[in-house]
Amino acid sequence: MIELPPELESPPVPWTRRHLLDLESLSAAEITTALDVAQSFKDATRDCKDKLPTLAGVTSVNLFFEDSTRTRTSFSLAARRLGADNIEFSASSSSVSKGETLLDTAKTIESMQIDAMVVRHRSPGAPQMLAKNLDCCVINAGDGPHEHPTQGLLDILTIRQHRGAIAGLTVALVGDIAHSRTARSNIWGLQKLGAHVIVCGPSTLVSKQWEKLGVEVSHDLDDIVARCDVLNLLRIQFERQYTRPFPSVREYALLYAMNRERMEQAKEDILIMAPGPINRGVEVTPEVADGSQSVILHQVNNGLAVRMAALYLVAKAPR
Amino acid sequence: MIELPPELESPPVPWTRRHLLDLESLSAAEITTALDVAQSFKDATRDCKDKLPTLAGVTSVNLFFEDSTRTRTSFSLAARRLGADNIEFSASSSSVSKGETLLDTAKTIESMQIDAMVVRHRSPGAPQMLAKNLDCCVINAGDGPHEHPTQGLLDILTIRQHRGAIAGLTVALVGDIAHSRTARSNIWGLQKLGAHVIVCGPSTLVSKQWEKLGVEVSHDLDDIVARCDVLNLLRIQFERQYTRPFPSVREYALLYAMNRERMEQAKEDILIMAPGPINRGVEVTPEVADGSQSVILHQVNNGLAVRMAALYLVAKAPR
Amino acid sequence: MIELPPELESPPVPWTRRHLLDLESLSAAEITTALDVAQSFKDATRDCKDKLPTLAGVTSVNLFFEDSTRTRTSFSLAARRLGADNIEFSASSSSVSKGETLLDTAKTIESMQIDAMVVRHRSPGAPQMLAKNLDCCVINAGDGPHEHPTQGLLDILTIRQHRGAIAGLTVALVGDIAHSRTARSNIWGLQKLGAHVIVCGPSTLVSKQWEKLGVEVSHDLDDIVARCDVLNLLRIQFERQYTRPFPSVREYALLYAMNRERMEQAKEDILIMAPGPINRGVEVTPEVADGSQSVILHQVNNGLAVRMAALYLVAKAPR
Repeated sequence: MIELPPELESPPVPWTRRHLLDLESLSAAEITTALDVAQSFKDATRDCKDKLPTLAGVTSVNLFFEDSTRTRTSFSLAARRLGADNIEFSASSSSVSKGETLLDTAKTIESMQIDAMVVRHRSPGAPQMLAKNLDCCVINAGDGPHEHPTQGLLDILTIRQHRGAIAGLTVALVGDIAHSRTARSNIWGLQKLGAHVIVCGPSTLVSKQWEKLGVEVSHDLDDIVARCDVLNLLRIQFERQYTRPFPSVREYALLYAMNRERMEQAKEDILIMAPGPINRGVEVTPEVADGSQSVILHQVNNGLAVRMAALYLVAKAPR
Repeated sequence: MIELPPELESPPVPWTRRHLLDLESLSAAEITTALDVAQSFKDATRDCKDKLPTLAGVTSVNLFFEDSTRTRTSFSLAARRLGADNIEFSASSSSVSKGETLLDTAKTIESMQIDAMVVRHRSPGAPQMLAKNLDCCVINAGDGPHEHPTQGLLDILTIRQHRGAIAGLTVALVGDIAHSRTARSNIWGLQKLGAHVIVCGPSTLVSKQWEKLGVEVSHDLDDIVARCDVLNLLRIQFERQYTRPFPSVREYALLYAMNRERMEQAKEDILIMAPGPINRGVEVTPEVADGSQSVILHQVNNGLAVRMAALYLVAKAPR
Repeated sequence: MIELPPELESPPVPWTRRHLLDLESLSAAEITTALDVAQSFKDATRDCKDKLPTLAGVTSVNLFFEDSTRTRTSFSLAARRLGADNIEFSASSSSVSKGETLLDTAKTIESMQIDAMVVRHRSPGAPQMLAKNLDCCVINAGDGPHEHPTQGLLDILTIRQHRGAIAGLTVALVGDIAHSRTARSNIWGLQKLGAHVIVCGPSTLVSKQWEKLGVEVSHDLDDIVARCDVLNLLRIQFERQYTRPFPSVREYALLYAMNRERMEQAKEDILIMAPGPINRGVEVTPEVADGSQSVILHQVNNGLAVRMAALYLVAKAPR
């Protein structure tokens, strides 16, 4: 059993939220708190993977209505590592198939003395609706194309570990911005911490409207790559029915894949990130994905610490 | 870690069964014991959700061949809260798909040093068959339309908490009685404890044959609602292929949904129950389901305590 | 909490492997070590199923791309009994459905501070590939028709428990040898320990080529049954699309099912084994499967101890 790091012995001062629904509504100070707590957990568990049982007696449930590897598994591991119990809810083998409403399902699960609910749902706003109607803590693990706050936090934490600070960096999000909850959470979080954010992709997936959020819009990766400190290569979601004209895979790869040629145009210390799962040869070539500037697996590793922080912060927040 | 309540330090005297298969074969004293133990667990964990590790070293398995949210999850949580290990068996990703018989599957799982098996199966009698052929404890979590004893117990516990006693109460079970294991377990349990039970629904789903079980049969909710202390609104199971003439959903809702108008005919302190998942607007209108007389979520919450009691009693029963 | 048996207090001397990929590459001494460790775990947990928390702080993941009851569940139980955390990875509800490569999926999971990965995959060599590319320990839980080393070990352990030693015994593997990873692991393990191995089945499923592995090939069970100390009745895998001419089920049962008549030809103390799930009436009749010479459920029970040993050995091996 690991001793709780002294800085975590009482809940960090600036955090009072019982839910983590988005990064849009968080202050820069709150985002920094979440990153600091995640870093503390990461440091505390680096050499020893024993339990940090600060959430003993807490039960969290993973309520996932969409597929997931990283997010679900890391929330589950995070809960256990903090000494909490974790329950998996499987939509496919549950009463959801009997026509129950989302709120009834959630209230039913909450009634089993659940403290924290980690929700992934295809509808934007589903976790917000649950947070308003439940007594337990709610963490958004992805609500349609809206937000995925722990993904945003782990991306930002990864950058901070490699660059020391976020302010002043230029970060480009490349790919299917229109459908990406990861993009939205990154945009809010990075801008609050002082980064310059570029969204880059074909005009069918990246409209000029995005400028309203304060970001730079680009349709040409070659045009921006030399200026970037970080490239976050979003996944082209082939399982989606793209209803608008869309470049072919070959065309997309030609224009937007991060490959050796583009790496030569980039800063030497550029960070290559991807929320995964990656389509090798589409968003990124294998040599870049597996290359020295790639921090893709660091992101996954940070996901565990960020989800520990998320569960810890909401569970310890004053009621 | 919570201290075991003194009354649970040794197994309660009147309980000697290593299986919980139905309420039909239990005595009133045994049912009362199960309710008392559940209430003790509920009281012990009300303010603290830490472990009560009285079943440390015990392994239970959830062997569910039909979908479930409430039952599966609450058995899983109940096992963990008592310090037991709990394993989920998924029929869909298992050797059942290779044609193995139920008994071979169960014997195989039992051979992995399993102490208690929680079984849901579409065939009435499946848990009874397993209890006869296995050495481990067996708990019936629903066998086709036959019985669902822990659902019966949690319904009765909920009533007892709100009314103090069962004897003398009038309880109506409304809806699809013909296919309902919940109805059967409620009928046996409630009658043994002295309640008057009415089964109410369309004649296609509630035959006069039910009078043989000692219950009153009604086809008209408006006729009985004023006399009832409790209404338990069973789910219309749309996923079933109803082969007999059946009212349309609209017709059913018109005749049997518990709504504001019927609430005005009811006793002021009537309890509105539903085993869930509910079809809002069919068995019950949202204003009643979410209203002041509804104890639907209390039922779910009691489910956890009842399943702790069930696991505790069978695991501690003398061999 | 159980005390670790003294002989397990430090990792056994001859074991240095961080992966368990097959029995082909193990020495007789290594196989014997694995069997001895499994036996120690079995003895230690016979009367008490409390934890042996020698792997506290270790996290294992079950990465199964094919259905399983026995193997998945027993690896999960084995991990918990040793105090490790165990995570289930479900291919069907994961990013694999989004087209991620096996290696990317595995690396992603490994990045969540995973220590041991238990892999089942349809492709021969998949676990070997992962072992080469990951830092964590890898255990092969079945790679297509190639090997299933823990199944081989538990079969051999079962024989050793009943016969004392393997050397000098005649063991026949009967059935679909061509597609059986269990057959391959048994052949390698049994021969290394000095058994005489016969493979027996229709010529479409048992070719003369097998003699190159040092085994005797037979197409006639009646011809060999009297000489055998052990029969291991492999499952006819009806879910496979047999593309070659294949006997009908009736014909197979007539020629190869172990039944009462053949038992009369067999040695009195013959051991009847089957890796399961069994097709009753095809490979074996119910009276033989459930008879006094059957050790089928012993095999399952030994599976738990063997998987404890496998996790223990690889996790404790020097890096």
